Amino acid sequence: MPEHTPGPRTRMVRGAADLLARGGLGGTSFREVLQRSSAPRGSVYHHFPGGKQELVAAAVNHVGDSLIAIIDGQAGRAADDVVAAVAAAMRHTLASSGLAAGCAVAAATVDAASEFPGLTDVASGVFRAWQAHLAAALHAGGIARPRADTLAVTVIAALEGAIILSRARHDITAYDHVTRELLAATRTAMPDPA
Amino acid sequence: MPEHTPGPRTRMVRGAADLLARGGLGGTSFREVLQRSSAPRGSVYHHFPGGKQELVAAAVNHVGDSLIAIIDGQAGRAADDVVAAVAAAMRHTLASSGLAAGCAVAAATVDAASEFPGLTDVASGVFRAWQAHLAAALHAGGIARPRADTLAVTVIAALEGAIILSRARHDITAYDHVTRELLAATRTAMPDPA
Repeated sequence: MPEHTPGPRTRMVRGAADLLARGGLGGTSFREVLQRSSAPRGSVYHHFPGGKQELVAAAVNHVGDSLIAIIDGQAGRAADDVVAAVAAAMRHTLASSGLAAGCAVAAATVDAASEFPGLTDVASGVFRAWQAHLAAALHAGGIARPRADTLAVTVIAALEGAIILSRARHDITAYDHVTRELLAATRTAMPDPA
Repeated sequence: MPEHTPGPRTRMVRGAADLLARGGLGGTSFREVLQRSSAPRGSVYHHFPGGKQELVAAAVNHVGDSLIAIIDGQAGRAADDVVAAVAAAMRHTLASSGLAAGCAVAAATVDAASEFPGLTDVASGVFRAWQAHLAAALHAGGIARPRADTLAVTVIAALEGAIILSRARHDITAYDHVTRELLAATRTAMPDPA
């Protein structure tokens, strides 16, 4: 994706996604989003008339679209290469933040229920899209359905859980062990090379 | 401290664990914990002089100990039976709450970082204990080390992630698909029956 100077709305969405990944909903305040995005105070309600819930929803969808682009970019590759690419993409966010940033979509699920029930549906839509795109890529990469479907949801679930374990333990080893098991499971489901 | 008697302290710990699993840290207030546990207002700081962080830490450890008891109760069973029992135990909390309650330990990780950094270490200790007990049970159930270790962390990570996906989607299908894949992976790692 070509990097150009993003406008204030995009900067706010990215800032919210990062804050959400680091501290959950409680750690995502308009004040901090504005600080990080160097956006003028008045611009929040201009760009997000629905307030915090709309900003956070945009952040969750932004994270969702980024991973979908990576999954779709693996078109034509073998299923284990697809899983490796998805695991590497989610590992990058985790590792580049010093294990401080988890997954913004999971964060919107875990603690949104009480404050912003609508966000659960946004997160749900992202998880559903990830699963559909990943299942299609695994199927194209050699795995029959319905196994491609159950494997896709397992890869997403296991990587989400691995992020939580690695953050809690301040150690990325758990994430890497889970990735290894997912690659083994994917290869077991692939047809033997002729 | 009357840790072993079902008094107000235990009721508060259980109430906090349930609130944490449902709404994360933001949804876990002393006021609600007192309401649920029918405990007198003054008793919170008597039992938890460290305040909310101490109450939540006790709740996380309570959830941790419950699953460890289940894992250890599988002693002598085959590895796939152990995984099935762990998956069933975590499924029970999810299903019996109508998919409203996730995992209190994960909740303490995902949104505690900003408010109560000490809780991350408590959650980390629980995850570490789960992994150690599960790896020992898988090893006793037929899986060689170090595979028992990577499989143990994968089972825990995948079930945690599956809880998040199922809650977000208001549908336990994702959890059941992940469980099926974990059982398949465990059987692949077990020795062939003689």
